[in-house]
Amino acid sequence: MQVLPLGLWLDLLGTFVFGLSGGMLAVRRELDVFGITVLAVAAALAGGMLRDIALGATPPAAFADGCYLVAALGSALCAFFGHRLIARLNKPVMILDAIGLGLFAVSGCGKALSFGLDPLPAVVLGILTAVGGGTVRDVLVAEVPRVLREEVYALAALLGALVVVLGAALDLNEGWTAAAGVAAAAAFRIVSVWRGWQAPRAPRSR
Amino acid sequence: MQVLPLGLWLDLLGTFVFGLSGGMLAVRRELDVFGITVLAVAAALAGGMLRDIALGATPPAAFADGCYLVAALGSALCAFFGHRLIARLNKPVMILDAIGLGLFAVSGCGKALSFGLDPLPAVVLGILTAVGGGTVRDVLVAEVPRVLREEVYALAALLGALVVVLGAALDLNEGWTAAAGVAAAAAFRIVSVWRGWQAPRAPRSR
Amino acid sequence: MQVLPLGLWLDLLGTFVFGLSGGMLAVRRELDVFGITVLAVAAALAGGMLRDIALGATPPAAFADGCYLVAALGSALCAFFGHRLIARLNKPVMILDAIGLGLFAVSGCGKALSFGLDPLPAVVLGILTAVGGGTVRDVLVAEVPRVLREEVYALAALLGALVVVLGAALDLNEGWTAAAGVAAAAAFRIVSVWRGWQAPRAPRSR
Repeated sequence: MQVLPLGLWLDLLGTFVFGLSGGMLAVRRELDVFGITVLAVAAALAGGMLRDIALGATPPAAFADGCYLVAALGSALCAFFGHRLIARLNKPVMILDAIGLGLFAVSGCGKALSFGLDPLPAVVLGILTAVGGGTVRDVLVAEVPRVLREEVYALAALLGALVVVLGAALDLNEGWTAAAGVAAAAAFRIVSVWRGWQAPRAPRSR
Repeated sequence: MQVLPLGLWLDLLGTFVFGLSGGMLAVRRELDVFGITVLAVAAALAGGMLRDIALGATPPAAFADGCYLVAALGSALCAFFGHRLIARLNKPVMILDAIGLGLFAVSGCGKALSFGLDPLPAVVLGILTAVGGGTVRDVLVAEVPRVLREEVYALAALLGALVVVLGAALDLNEGWTAAAGVAAAAAFRIVSVWRGWQAPRAPRSR
Repeated sequence: MQVLPLGLWLDLLGTFVFGLSGGMLAVRRELDVFGITVLAVAAALAGGMLRDIALGATPPAAFADGCYLVAALGSALCAFFGHRLIARLNKPVMILDAIGLGLFAVSGCGKALSFGLDPLPAVVLGILTAVGGGTVRDVLVAEVPRVLREEVYALAALLGALVVVLGAALDLNEGWTAAAGVAAAAAFRIVSVWRGWQAPRAPRSR
């Protein structure tokens, strides 16, 4: 998991920010404090749990190290008490979310490579790690998940994972590769939101 | 799994009652006999399967021991032929469901501790075991799961799991601790339904 | 996985056809190219991944061998560029889908038996393998999954898995048993669509 010198702290930041997205969705859907906690924990941890279960790395990091649960529960508390403030901070939250997306894509792809997976499956597992939490979050409230609605979300995760695979193929320094992957994914995501980029639809449905 | 002298029998009772909830939901949604079976099996077994897969205890108990599948299939049959009777017995069914909730929370948390997890992750896995089956059941018919709608459902599971963690910390007799955990969770759930307790919502949304 | 001399090729065909069903659903829901890819990959691989994760056979075949991902991504491409043609070929696609259903039920049940599961759990895992991909696909777009709506879908998978269990019990040649299982499941599915067979509903709801 610790893909950077600051690895664990960045991972916990990503967990917290993803948890926040779950908690805020629960507040918008007028769920109570338990609903907020469940959605925050699911959004924060499901991606990493899917990654670890698919790799056979059990128990998942989210259960082996209590820090992750503390970060997820903390995000639920923040959403419960601070949702008005957080809703007003939508730009910083979007940027943190983009960084979380990059962190999870990079850590998922890197862990898959270290478990001996080939580059293509490692990239797919990186994307799954990055979008898994948000997908479980949206499915739980019966919404079509963001990865299917917001066009370039998965593409940003793909970009981050590709940088990791490329860096490993060229035998570059792991820490710098990871940093570059996170930066590429986050920057792409932020610019795509800012510019309103859209992906092509299938020919006829235009 | 066998947390009590009567462990396996109680576990199968919990499996059966959870299966019944899936089967009855399928009947209300006018699904056919296969839909009833699928929802009953999913509601009965998904929570324990999530627990075992997260712990790396594969194949899950539900597959390693055929009894669980027999109990789940039996509940599907009962829902198919006896749904009118079961619908009239809603009070006893609610009480059995509360006991099932307690049994699954206790068995999930106890198994997590025996696999060396820390108390906080063990409690979360206990809750996941207790609410997992119902959540998969509701997601399959595109409903927001009960754990997000019925406020104190997760809290009852939390209570049962906390008793197990506390008992383990104080080195109390495992059987009695488990019994106390099941009783606490079931009693809390029954009283909360009876009194119509509600959990707090986030400040503004009131 | 290689249940037949042609095992891997047939498995990849099943993966491709299931992926096509996900991609076509995404086109009908007017999702963009990433949504098409996500739904195609989920429909193609989720069933086999569930099977492998439940058996503790990690990383799942879909990640251990890049061919599966290539087949899934290929089906997404075909759906994106060829959806008008594919929509017109609905009869051949239905027949391929029925063969895919049989292949996945047989491979799931056979792999479960080879991992030492009892016949009843092996049959259930075969059905889960066959219907898992389509179920995840439908849940992702917030639809009630086909296994709950299309009555005899699960029954066809059950039939294929039963043939495998029976063949193993009678110690028959594995390759021929697998072929018979696929043929039985596919034939049953095709005839049931052709004749419009319906399964019984619970007594009152008629």
